[in-house]
Amino acid sequence: MVRVLILGLGMVGTTFSVGLERIKKGEIKPYGVPLANVDLGITINDIEIVGAIDIDERKVNSSIYDVAKRIYNMDNVPVTLKDIKVYPGLGGEFVKDLFPIYQADGDHKDTMDLVYKVFEELKPDVIVDVTTTQEGKIYNTWEEYEKDVLAGKAAPSQVYAYLALRYAEETRPVAYVNLIPTPVANNPVIVSAAERVNALVLGDDGATGATPLTADILEHLRERNRKVYSIAQFNIGGNTDFLALTDESRNKAKKETKSSVVKDILGYEAPNYIRPTGYLEPLGDKKFVAMHIMYESFNGVIDEIIVNMRINDSPALAGYIVDLARLAKLALDAGIAGTIYEINAFFMKRPAPLGSKNIARILAYQRLIEFINSIRNKEMATEEEKIPVQ
Amino acid sequence: MVRVLILGLGMVGTTFSVGLERIKKGEIKPYGVPLANVDLGITINDIEIVGAIDIDERKVNSSIYDVAKRIYNMDNVPVTLKDIKVYPGLGGEFVKDLFPIYQADGDHKDTMDLVYKVFEELKPDVIVDVTTTQEGKIYNTWEEYEKDVLAGKAAPSQVYAYLALRYAEETRPVAYVNLIPTPVANNPVIVSAAERVNALVLGDDGATGATPLTADILEHLRERNRKVYSIAQFNIGGNTDFLALTDESRNKAKKETKSSVVKDILGYEAPNYIRPTGYLEPLGDKKFVAMHIMYESFNGVIDEIIVNMRINDSPALAGYIVDLARLAKLALDAGIAGTIYEINAFFMKRPAPLGSKNIARILAYQRLIEFINSIRNKEMATEEEKIPVQ
Amino acid sequence: MVRVLILGLGMVGTTFSVGLERIKKGEIKPYGVPLANVDLGITINDIEIVGAIDIDERKVNSSIYDVAKRIYNMDNVPVTLKDIKVYPGLGGEFVKDLFPIYQADGDHKDTMDLVYKVFEELKPDVIVDVTTTQEGKIYNTWEEYEKDVLAGKAAPSQVYAYLALRYAEETRPVAYVNLIPTPVANNPVIVSAAERVNALVLGDDGATGATPLTADILEHLRERNRKVYSIAQFNIGGNTDFLALTDESRNKAKKETKSSVVKDILGYEAPNYIRPTGYLEPLGDKKFVAMHIMYESFNGVIDEIIVNMRINDSPALAGYIVDLARLAKLALDAGIAGTIYEINAFFMKRPAPLGSKNIARILAYQRLIEFINSIRNKEMATEEEKIPVQ
Amino acid sequence: MVRVLILGLGMVGTTFSVGLERIKKGEIKPYGVPLANVDLGITINDIEIVGAIDIDERKVNSSIYDVAKRIYNMDNVPVTLKDIKVYPGLGGEFVKDLFPIYQADGDHKDTMDLVYKVFEELKPDVIVDVTTTQEGKIYNTWEEYEKDVLAGKAAPSQVYAYLALRYAEETRPVAYVNLIPTPVANNPVIVSAAERVNALVLGDDGATGATPLTADILEHLRERNRKVYSIAQFNIGGNTDFLALTDESRNKAKKETKSSVVKDILGYEAPNYIRPTGYLEPLGDKKFVAMHIMYESFNGVIDEIIVNMRINDSPALAGYIVDLARLAKLALDAGIAGTIYEINAFFMKRPAPLGSKNIARILAYQRLIEFINSIRNKEMATEEEKIPVQ
Repeated sequence: MVRVLILGLGMVGTTFSVGLERIKKGEIKPYGVPLANVDLGITINDIEIVGAIDIDERKVNSSIYDVAKRIYNMDNVPVTLKDIKVYPGLGGEFVKDLFPIYQADGDHKDTMDLVYKVFEELKPDVIVDVTTTQEGKIYNTWEEYEKDVLAGKAAPSQVYAYLALRYAEETRPVAYVNLIPTPVANNPVIVSAAERVNALVLGDDGATGATPLTADILEHLRERNRKVYSIAQFNIGGNTDFLALTDESRNKAKKETKSSVVKDILGYEAPNYIRPTGYLEPLGDKKFVAMHIMYESFNGVIDEIIVNMRINDSPALAGYIVDLARLAKLALDAGIAGTIYEINAFFMKRPAPLGSKNIARILAYQRLIEFINSIRNKEMATEEEKIPVQ
Repeated sequence: MVRVLILGLGMVGTTFSVGLERIKKGEIKPYGVPLANVDLGITINDIEIVGAIDIDERKVNSSIYDVAKRIYNMDNVPVTLKDIKVYPGLGGEFVKDLFPIYQADGDHKDTMDLVYKVFEELKPDVIVDVTTTQEGKIYNTWEEYEKDVLAGKAAPSQVYAYLALRYAEETRPVAYVNLIPTPVANNPVIVSAAERVNALVLGDDGATGATPLTADILEHLRERNRKVYSIAQFNIGGNTDFLALTDESRNKAKKETKSSVVKDILGYEAPNYIRPTGYLEPLGDKKFVAMHIMYESFNGVIDEIIVNMRINDSPALAGYIVDLARLAKLALDAGIAGTIYEINAFFMKRPAPLGSKNIARILAYQRLIEFINSIRNKEMATEEEKIPVQ
Repeated sequence: MVRVLILGLGMVGTTFSVGLERIKKGEIKPYGVPLANVDLGITINDIEIVGAIDIDERKVNSSIYDVAKRIYNMDNVPVTLKDIKVYPGLGGEFVKDLFPIYQADGDHKDTMDLVYKVFEELKPDVIVDVTTTQEGKIYNTWEEYEKDVLAGKAAPSQVYAYLALRYAEETRPVAYVNLIPTPVANNPVIVSAAERVNALVLGDDGATGATPLTADILEHLRERNRKVYSIAQFNIGGNTDFLALTDESRNKAKKETKSSVVKDILGYEAPNYIRPTGYLEPLGDKKFVAMHIMYESFNGVIDEIIVNMRINDSPALAGYIVDLARLAKLALDAGIAGTIYEINAFFMKRPAPLGSKNIARILAYQRLIEFINSIRNKEMATEEEKIPVQ
Repeated sequence: MVRVLILGLGMVGTTFSVGLERIKKGEIKPYGVPLANVDLGITINDIEIVGAIDIDERKVNSSIYDVAKRIYNMDNVPVTLKDIKVYPGLGGEFVKDLFPIYQADGDHKDTMDLVYKVFEELKPDVIVDVTTTQEGKIYNTWEEYEKDVLAGKAAPSQVYAYLALRYAEETRPVAYVNLIPTPVANNPVIVSAAERVNALVLGDDGATGATPLTADILEHLRERNRKVYSIAQFNIGGNTDFLALTDESRNKAKKETKSSVVKDILGYEAPNYIRPTGYLEPLGDKKFVAMHIMYESFNGVIDEIIVNMRINDSPALAGYIVDLARLAKLALDAGIAGTIYEINAFFMKRPAPLGSKNIARILAYQRLIEFINSIRNKEMATEEEKIPVQ
């Protein structure tokens, strides 16, 4: 059993909930779940969503079922989601430009206590962060971090992570999986603390969309020693994520993540323009991506690749959560604390720990499979040990 | 030193010659040469083109320099190519619809003898086949193969390979590198014979263009368990290769190669339409590729990827030859005979031996690097052995 | 009131039926109906479908409602279609590779009589031909045509047209609107006969999909005196239309139509490859189009345009039928017989009469509007005349 | 003879100069010159470039030949350009972030006098403005305008236009052709003044690139009553124009022009994101455009069109200048003053006079041809009058 708590019940969290329950009912196949056919010892059916946290006043105190139907007009919403509640969260002041905020009594400290109580009550193994992107600092010391957290100056994700660490220390091991660009797993002070308290912090920024495909295309070019001259990549969509990014500071956070891929993989700084470009409401959750890559090949010729994509943003990330929840539990059970590059390198745009490189996704997948095998082999060895030799 | 003989001095062979000499002169960087930055022990400067064989009467008895300038209007042709001669070849009857054929005296047997004498005279280490694609059989027995070869019924590439095997037996080890779709390395009787006579046969069908990128994109989708619904891939170009493929039987050979990639990588038969589509003279050597992939992701959504490419056909393959020549020599020196999947899997669309699977190119690259390291390590171990311990 | 009979109840005919009734109910807006906002004197509500003719045994004697639901799995099918019947047609032997054929009693002559009786019974004003494409001859004399028709050697559309002419002569004026590539309106003997019997023949080959857009893009380039070097256009889809075109002779009919556009508009023969390329079942009725245009602009530079489309094939044509039915009736009422270039030039890929040129669609639209105005003005003048001057 | 003075000798002005001279020499065909095959009475050979004005210190006092060779590394530069000089201009303070500015003696007033003297000396018929885009106001009164011009607060183009008006008043009729977004012809006070002094002001913002094609595609959709849901259009390039637009205020000027097209043509506000998106130096003058249009067609289906372009920015506009110079002279000779919508509607993104609508380019072309014919017919009538009847 893997008990999952969702932070931020937007399109991603809701799609994860709906899709997971539909798979468990046998209504759909687990397409878009990367490791659906890999034996992790923990099955998709083992995942149980225990609750969600949000600050949108239209969602708080409602059920996931209700959010899926009323806010997102989704079809085929399983009734099992009627029993899963949405609890009030923190950080409303960061997103009040985007939707109506639930007004809780008390100050920042009170809200933190409230959230912590939800953790204690729901007893999650895995806390998945799919809240709205905010700029966040990288802290040099625990004291600095704690000070900002308590003063309400840290990014909401960093406050949630702080509470998760406390919960790990006081209650039970937990994994915090951060899928947004805000640096959590890339904050060394957070990872060190996680090591101390037997928590796991995975992240940052779920690698769906055009960026992971770009990574593999760049690797493809690198392996042929083609000299990349320029990369342009435009993204436009109509969901809240794109709307949020029309705010310049949020967009900046996103752009940096994406550009670093180029140098990590090619080994040199190819001029590039890679960023979420605009918001166009009618596109909805299915974004449009246009990419142009120009490179030099043998004997000085110039080639060009153009990629256009029409891809559903939220389901891609939702599918990853199914595996991240299982992998996180697997690692916790194996006694691993801190962060795990092998998982981050495949699933994240900015794989922790801080300073790690992006590698081609196809290579990251190989490393992930090896990592899984090594844990599974140890598990089995341990099982065997337990079996009394006659 | 690697002595290279080119079979078929078309755009690919000529571009290889010009690009190689320009790199050796330091005039251009070795972009498009996959392993330019990998230490093979054999450098690009070690490659020496010893001659070319063709059956186009405008080319025979001329120099590579002359062909590059007069037939292909190339710029920057190094004068070193003035000394490299074009010798008459065999199989003219297969391509008389495409260009004027050099008329040699004597019958098929005489022509074979003539070609064999060229082999003996030029002493190649590596024979590279970039002749025009022809349909070719897969032979069940050596006798059947030899009979067709001697009767002039085998595809020209298969006749050249036969002569190469004789040359290996009678003169010195040689590698035959087949870059066209005609089955040579995929002919088990040829590979077995190669093993016997210390020859190497690599092939078939150089993997440039859209197919290897498609392989990596499909692997990318497979690793996310996205269900591919359909793949359409159109190719159109204006070089002789495309002109030749307007002949239905030649096109069939090409189409089969390409489609097999889908099942090999995805593990299931996704409906696909992948083939060279047409000839449009003004496009020249820079072909246009359009690809559409539709797949199902998490929670039943449908995504689409469209790829458009404008890529120079001949230079891509020419760049591969630089490495294949070096790898073939490296393997011959290490005493390897027969064929080598690790090389074929990266460089070829239909990697020999017959029945081998296509794997994603990014994975094939890893295996290739491991293969190179294993040979290089053995070499060094042997070197050390030779050093007398004091 | 415009009484419409549909020949060939495939995706197009069915979509037309469903869409028309939904618009009449006010359920959807008339998007995709070109002249929805132009006053023709005849409204969309005036159109009444009186029946359909088909030769698919799964459809004959069923209702349009039933075909829409059972064969095409359509949603939102209006119940008003339950009352509209599908009658048996002719030409089954031409399409027996595609679907099960309804077996009627009697020979070809009997079948013709049967169809004629349906005409007499249903009393259509407009007969719309959306049957499966077949090769068809252009006849030099009426005798030749009649001979082939009676012998069952003419294309089915040409037999239907023959019956329509007889119906016009014996019963009432009728318009035959041919939306498939088979030459009907491009057959001078048929048009001449139509003039004699007060019938109208419009056609051939409804101009939806990429071709009309290509026409406008080429006009755009021509008006800037850009020299077009090459045009490649690929089409792939998964409906019966594409399946039918995997038959080489049917494809040939289609390809010729498309290529003629280039010279008609540019004024010179730009090398082109424009044709339906393949069949890929999962694409369904929504085809994928890829187009590449390369041209020279000022001071010798080369530019390129790539167009990719994902377009629903059948609804585009179905929307045209709504207007063609109204325009045909308008013209019949105005006493026009033969064919009308102004209508064909906008709606058809091969606008009749034979030998007419394709013009840019945007220009054709202007001429169409002028034609409509001239008829409407005459109508009004006549109205005024009728009013007794006091 | 048409005497042309170029304001701003950037890529466009230089390409115009080089291309024009090459056409006059018969070295290249006049591709990219829209009306090359239309008889205007004034031929391309009649155009004479009399000088250029710039403020880049690397260009001032040099020749056009020198600028073409040294700054833009162009090939095939005709030696006739050695005799055409580059004179110092005004407005350096607006572009000092982009290149080194020529430092003239004296204040703004002195510089204006200097430019005016160049006008008087070179005696242009047509002054073509291809300077760098700057934000510019629309003035309510001549006094306001004059005050800003004299104070150096108006955009440079508006100052040049002011001087052109004075030149028309004091010396000879002149046409000012503004090809940048800064409002000149869209300034009613300037057009009124032009009417008074027998000057012509054409503009604003040359309609090359993706926008005019988008206009025609939108018209194509409108004429089929397809409901456009959204339009995304990205542009990225590596020339000074794109570099300049990384400055937010310059970009804003450009974006507004582009978006207005949508409503003008469709008749409703389809959500759109249309703007120059970024700067990527390796793309050079050949920009990359990606466009996505989504619309509803018949029976509620959704279609999509994706357009990707690789187009040379400067030559497209340079080719227009060849015609604009000739048309401007034709109109001046015919005694027309003020501005001419028929010319602007085809060549400009924001056709003057202020408040005019954009129409589809294919329709604008028809109106342009009619305008030309009407002038030419009058000319001929006048010619005939002059011929004494015997």
